[in-house]
Amino acid sequence: MTSRAAKLLAADVPAIAAAHFEAEADPYGPGNPGGYVNLGTADNRLVWDLLAPRLSVPPRQADVHYGLLYGTPELRSAVATLLAPVWPGVDAEDLVVVSGATAALDIVATTLCDPGDVILVPAPYYAAFDTDLTARSGARLLPVYLSPDDGFALDPVAIDRALTEARREGVPVRAIAVTSPSNPIGHVHSPTVLRDVVRVATAHSVDVIADEIYANSTFGAEFTSMVGERNVHAIWGLAKDFGLSGLKVGVLHTRDPEVLAAARALAYFAPVSTHTQALVTHLLSDGDWVEGFLTESRRRLHASATATMALLDDAGIGYVRADGGFSLWTDLRPHLGGTDEHTLWQRILREGRVNILPGSVFAAPEPGWFRLCHATGADTVATGIDRLAGVLS
Amino acid sequence: MTSRAAKLLAADVPAIAAAHFEAEADPYGPGNPGGYVNLGTADNRLVWDLLAPRLSVPPRQADVHYGLLYGTPELRSAVATLLAPVWPGVDAEDLVVVSGATAALDIVATTLCDPGDVILVPAPYYAAFDTDLTARSGARLLPVYLSPDDGFALDPVAIDRALTEARREGVPVRAIAVTSPSNPIGHVHSPTVLRDVVRVATAHSVDVIADEIYANSTFGAEFTSMVGERNVHAIWGLAKDFGLSGLKVGVLHTRDPEVLAAARALAYFAPVSTHTQALVTHLLSDGDWVEGFLTESRRRLHASATATMALLDDAGIGYVRADGGFSLWTDLRPHLGGTDEHTLWQRILREGRVNILPGSVFAAPEPGWFRLCHATGADTVATGIDRLAGVLS
Repeated sequence: MTSRAAKLLAADVPAIAAAHFEAEADPYGPGNPGGYVNLGTADNRLVWDLLAPRLSVPPRQADVHYGLLYGTPELRSAVATLLAPVWPGVDAEDLVVVSGATAALDIVATTLCDPGDVILVPAPYYAAFDTDLTARSGARLLPVYLSPDDGFALDPVAIDRALTEARREGVPVRAIAVTSPSNPIGHVHSPTVLRDVVRVATAHSVDVIADEIYANSTFGAEFTSMVGERNVHAIWGLAKDFGLSGLKVGVLHTRDPEVLAAARALAYFAPVSTHTQALVTHLLSDGDWVEGFLTESRRRLHASATATMALLDDAGIGYVRADGGFSLWTDLRPHLGGTDEHTLWQRILREGRVNILPGSVFAAPEPGWFRLCHATGADTVATGIDRLAGVLS
Repeated sequence: MTSRAAKLLAADVPAIAAAHFEAEADPYGPGNPGGYVNLGTADNRLVWDLLAPRLSVPPRQADVHYGLLYGTPELRSAVATLLAPVWPGVDAEDLVVVSGATAALDIVATTLCDPGDVILVPAPYYAAFDTDLTARSGARLLPVYLSPDDGFALDPVAIDRALTEARREGVPVRAIAVTSPSNPIGHVHSPTVLRDVVRVATAHSVDVIADEIYANSTFGAEFTSMVGERNVHAIWGLAKDFGLSGLKVGVLHTRDPEVLAAARALAYFAPVSTHTQALVTHLLSDGDWVEGFLTESRRRLHASATATMALLDDAGIGYVRADGGFSLWTDLRPHLGGTDEHTLWQRILREGRVNILPGSVFAAPEPGWFRLCHATGADTVATGIDRLAGVLS
């Protein structure tokens, strides 16, 4: 067995995936009231009724034969049109379409980093970064811990300090990876903070990986993109804003010609089915429908987040107020008691049959925080919080 | 710029892809009689009328949400049923589904090889092996040249000799990669020869990567799989036998638990759209339809190969007789004259506006051989050979 294969096998399945499949194997529902309530997966199940009528398109012959492997011109053009309001000056030629945001993150990390190079990540961060940004690229993550005292706000000063220190110690930092809107917290970062983060990165000659997959899933504040300078590489996909997580359509936007060329070369290994590309192109082709869909999706997410916060308030469970995304960062620190986070997590999963992910998988700076996803339907969320409160009491 | 990105940029786009897109940008047809005749791409365009009625399936909600990332159980089960006649004892649990045979080849190479390790390949070999097996894995290819004197027949003795020599010189050979049926030659290898190749591999403690993507595209001889021992890892996909090259559905079959586990981990980076997986599951679900389709597809491929050979005979162009696949390995050695293969290729492409790929991209042991793909329609092939004969005369 090669040392590389051994390393792949030693790496844990991302906890986020393992818990998802366990919960989904026996899901709560009208026919299965004792099943798992899955509040662990950031999936948007609030919009299927809007999507279904737009997804019935029989493929044409051209849709099932070889296409350009970094995305058909038609799809890249449709994505550019869609994202023009959020990505200033976006050009279809700067987009690389691959089989999922995971593949896009892997590709940008592989392009920016040689094995052993380091990517700085404000923590808590998106749990799958651990795998997506490192498993194939060989890069390493270095967390910069954000403070619970100001709700884990993104902190350019802390990033600057960490970069200065890393540089002094000879740590080869190549990039900063930021989720914006933030996952797991749900913050929509302010334009000032984002500009400062890019400024800090530029001052230290590192690139920015901006995971903007929730760009259109905001409700409490207006989203600003980090796209602009050549050292900013942004990720988007269909999984969140359109609730089409299974289609595995990921998008990388970059204005660095070398990163673009290398990403196109790597896209050859993770192309999207032309059949799915044709479907998505059709879906995005009607601008009025898209605008209506995104407006309604935001409205439903807002209603879902508001209702969930009310339920948490009633149950006496704390959380950080979210402006976007599908989840709430809930504060179960008072319920740790004499036990550790892992034990509490397992009690919630086994006794409560509720899947919420513990802060440790997001590299939280302290134990007791959990990510609770609410975009799965009001009844499911109410049942889940009810069970959660039962376990905690 | 990292050294890895520089290496990616330095690598040529596979010639097979570049020529394909150039030809497809201005294709010959009823409305464009002066366009390129593309006989360079191994695409099966003879069966769309059979496929189209089976491809109109609106997705269900479950088809657009997160699925198991190495292939849904439904699709793996459908593929196992389909391939049971060719892969003895195939089990859906031994299958990993990823976004294309290219991704499957990359994954098996990455699993079997550390960077710098070597994969032995009988040459001429499938042109994209150069990229698929090496660009991400860091493995290197070592060709074993087959002889024109016996029509480039697969030669276990030559492989044995090459392995012995490599071992003596300390070359770290980890695997042999074989296309079976062979691409570009079109041979359906005999059971005896295939058994001997596996025997040689086992004796030298190396694995076998069996690219069996044309398993059901035979007409002149019966296909035998190399699947059996634990050191044989087989590749299949929808691109050839079903002419669905755009869907990028690749399949890896392995009975090595470590390779399987590592391949599942890597599949996370190259998943197939659940929407496309549902479509393919539906396509394969009717056994009678599948049997009828494969029989008719083989009949059409046979007719196409036979007609093409007759046209080549009439034009006085030599070739190796094929029992399978979409192409004929044609002998333009007499037409090299004082020039080299590249110059002849460019004359055919520029003057004749015919895309056929030169032997050099397949690592042919001598200049003057070209791969001519015929599964694109009788009129296209006739026009292409007519133009080719014009350039050569």
